[in-house]
Amino acid sequence: MSAPQIPEQATEQATEAAEPATEQATEQTQDTPVLATARRARTASAELAPAPRATRDAALLAVADALLARTDEIVAANAEDVAAARAAGTPASVVDRLTLTPERIAGIASDVRDVIALPDPVGQVQRGSTLPNGLELRQVRVPLGVVGIIYEARPNVTVDAAALCLKSGNAVLLRGSSSARASNTALVAVLRDAVASAGLPADAVQLVPGESRESVKELMRARGLVDVLIPRGGASLIRTVVQESTVPVIETGTGNCHVYVDESADIDTALAILVNSKAQRPSVCNAAETVLVHAGIAADFLPRALTALAEAGVTVHGDAAWQATGEGVVPATDEDWGCEYLSYDIAAAVVPSLDAAVEHIRTWTSGHTEAIVTQDTSAARRFTTLVDSAAVMVNASTRFTDGAQFGFGAEIGISTQKLHARGPMGLPELTSTKYVVTGDGHIRP
Amino acid sequence: MSAPQIPEQATEQATEAAEPATEQATEQTQDTPVLATARRARTASAELAPAPRATRDAALLAVADALLARTDEIVAANAEDVAAARAAGTPASVVDRLTLTPERIAGIASDVRDVIALPDPVGQVQRGSTLPNGLELRQVRVPLGVVGIIYEARPNVTVDAAALCLKSGNAVLLRGSSSARASNTALVAVLRDAVASAGLPADAVQLVPGESRESVKELMRARGLVDVLIPRGGASLIRTVVQESTVPVIETGTGNCHVYVDESADIDTALAILVNSKAQRPSVCNAAETVLVHAGIAADFLPRALTALAEAGVTVHGDAAWQATGEGVVPATDEDWGCEYLSYDIAAAVVPSLDAAVEHIRTWTSGHTEAIVTQDTSAARRFTTLVDSAAVMVNASTRFTDGAQFGFGAEIGISTQKLHARGPMGLPELTSTKYVVTGDGHIRP
Repeated sequence: MSAPQIPEQATEQATEAAEPATEQATEQTQDTPVLATARRARTASAELAPAPRATRDAALLAVADALLARTDEIVAANAEDVAAARAAGTPASVVDRLTLTPERIAGIASDVRDVIALPDPVGQVQRGSTLPNGLELRQVRVPLGVVGIIYEARPNVTVDAAALCLKSGNAVLLRGSSSARASNTALVAVLRDAVASAGLPADAVQLVPGESRESVKELMRARGLVDVLIPRGGASLIRTVVQESTVPVIETGTGNCHVYVDESADIDTALAILVNSKAQRPSVCNAAETVLVHAGIAADFLPRALTALAEAGVTVHGDAAWQATGEGVVPATDEDWGCEYLSYDIAAAVVPSLDAAVEHIRTWTSGHTEAIVTQDTSAARRFTTLVDSAAVMVNASTRFTDGAQFGFGAEIGISTQKLHARGPMGLPELTSTKYVVTGDGHIRP
Repeated sequence: MSAPQIPEQATEQATEAAEPATEQATEQTQDTPVLATARRARTASAELAPAPRATRDAALLAVADALLARTDEIVAANAEDVAAARAAGTPASVVDRLTLTPERIAGIASDVRDVIALPDPVGQVQRGSTLPNGLELRQVRVPLGVVGIIYEARPNVTVDAAALCLKSGNAVLLRGSSSARASNTALVAVLRDAVASAGLPADAVQLVPGESRESVKELMRARGLVDVLIPRGGASLIRTVVQESTVPVIETGTGNCHVYVDESADIDTALAILVNSKAQRPSVCNAAETVLVHAGIAADFLPRALTALAEAGVTVHGDAAWQATGEGVVPATDEDWGCEYLSYDIAAAVVPSLDAAVEHIRTWTSGHTEAIVTQDTSAARRFTTLVDSAAVMVNASTRFTDGAQFGFGAEIGISTQKLHARGPMGLPELTSTKYVVTGDGHIRP
């Protein structure tokens, strides 16, 4: 089974491969500012990756201290961004996410201290054995290398992402929103000084230069220099990166989450989970966007659900059964089934069976989180087996899909793809592995 | 740290997302033959993924039996391909890899039986805990879904890949070489009948229709239908897939492997490892392509290495030091350092230090396997820490990087990328995970 691969045209191949890996990857003879930045990150990564935990932790401690010491500088820079955003008529909620206060900066610094306390993923032995011939095999976690993060006007992400990357031995390339430029510049200056003060290369933390779409595209084509891109933001950004990047991408965040109320559900439990999943914080990716109800319980459940949802301020976009149950139900279309509202809205349907619910979910889900409410162990088992999403909840709110809730301490995003990482991504997901094989002159017979 | 992501333009996003996941992914209203095949694979995957191990193993047993029972049919189809290849003047080594004999088919069937005996990766609990609030968290291995394999004129890969995918609960799309079309058609017919006889969907195993580059391109754009593509073959094929695929890709196989002979190496050990790494089977990806020798041992090592390599029939492409040491050394250029010869050739240089060897490797390696020969524990430790490749050997031949040698039983390729899988890929690497979270009416406060 394990016959190695024998290329058919070795000669042609040999000629093609005769370029250094990085040149080959970027196909650039002259570095643009973005590629020069990525190349510096690569160099910094080679120095950072083998640094012991104590050094990486010292750098993080210096970051936390410097954030507090230089709060005034950061707040002043942030004020520029906030003023510009207000002048541009940016919605208040976005301005709020953009705003840094001394209290918020203290909170960010405290988060950095929490990251210091997390277990070090680097060097963990994932598996190991002594082979029959005496070779000692170990699979060891190593940093990915250079991690690129593309995100929005939330300056706290600048520090969060850098802290998680430093902790896991990765150089980070930060591509924030132009509307947070002054804030990010100030924060990255603080981060770089702190990293350098611990004896690590300042280029382990860099802002990606340029504000144009073109600079993002260059980042996406810097294969060989950047090891992974993690886009955090709206569906359109994520789709662009997925479609155009030759650098491997981890898709995050889009959450069209479902709550399925089984025939055997306890109605009070189902109501509590539904309202919590939808309305506890509707603007986030693990909030529910659709409720599916088994026909066998619909007559009892729907009227109470309409009341509970109305009390929570939620508008229901329902199918015929929901519309027939109460006033104020907006007729649902296919657009609703595919919709991540991120608001006080929910799509609602009645389904003839658990399998029909699974089929609906398979058709429309973004693969983030689905929940079943049931008292029937067979139904729970069938649902968790058949539903193929990052997280499947039994008798629990969709809102629990979260790195902190899962006990991972921190997360860099929630992956909705299947390769490499799925669900909340903590420090281990920012690492790769390598095999270290130790012999005593072993050769293959 | 774990604040969820709040897209800035929820409204725009909501409109965009209002399409079923698969439509959205393929952006096709009318399915082409390739997309129709991928869609059937997706449907088959939904049925195959939850099938218990006993059913999947029964299908594999039926495959092994049917390969033996239908050997004549397979050999007859293969004879067409072989005759066409000979008529086209195909090199004898390629014709040999294409050829199926009753003995080879029996060997392939025996390999399938070996796969049956491997541990089932599906359903393995990777981690689990009871959270402080009583939620029970389990991270469980699940099949990836639909796996696409693009490969060359080696019909044994058709069965190997299908067997590993079936064992791990994945539907497989096989895109072999047109020069093996008759063989692959016969083999896939056998596979499909056997799978169906075990009560699983025949569409779990399909050939990708079409022989043009265009059909490969369609496969590469079938995001949402195909979960991962694994190209196995020449560097040019792999590069094309990496550059153009929107489906996630696992890069395999290119091996520009290095042997570094440290100052402290035992010379006999170093000679044995060098010759074994280069010449035991030069046509494979884990064969060495470059030898780097510490200057402090060069005067003793180089003359003996030249003799040993010459005896093994290896041509040395050396730097000035190697050229000065003996007759017949071809002057090396940058092309040699980047070259995967896959032949009885080796690039050779003398380096001033271990760190210079690491720097050379970092510049030129494809990230497959590098070996150090040394008696110095500090040197071994520094080399294994600084070299960032899928496998790092200490006092062992590069030829050991192999799924069977590592004790994984079988491999679907050797990944040279860092995401998801690195090094020999066995059954666990053909799976993803999902979180199953069980509560008792848990909601977030």
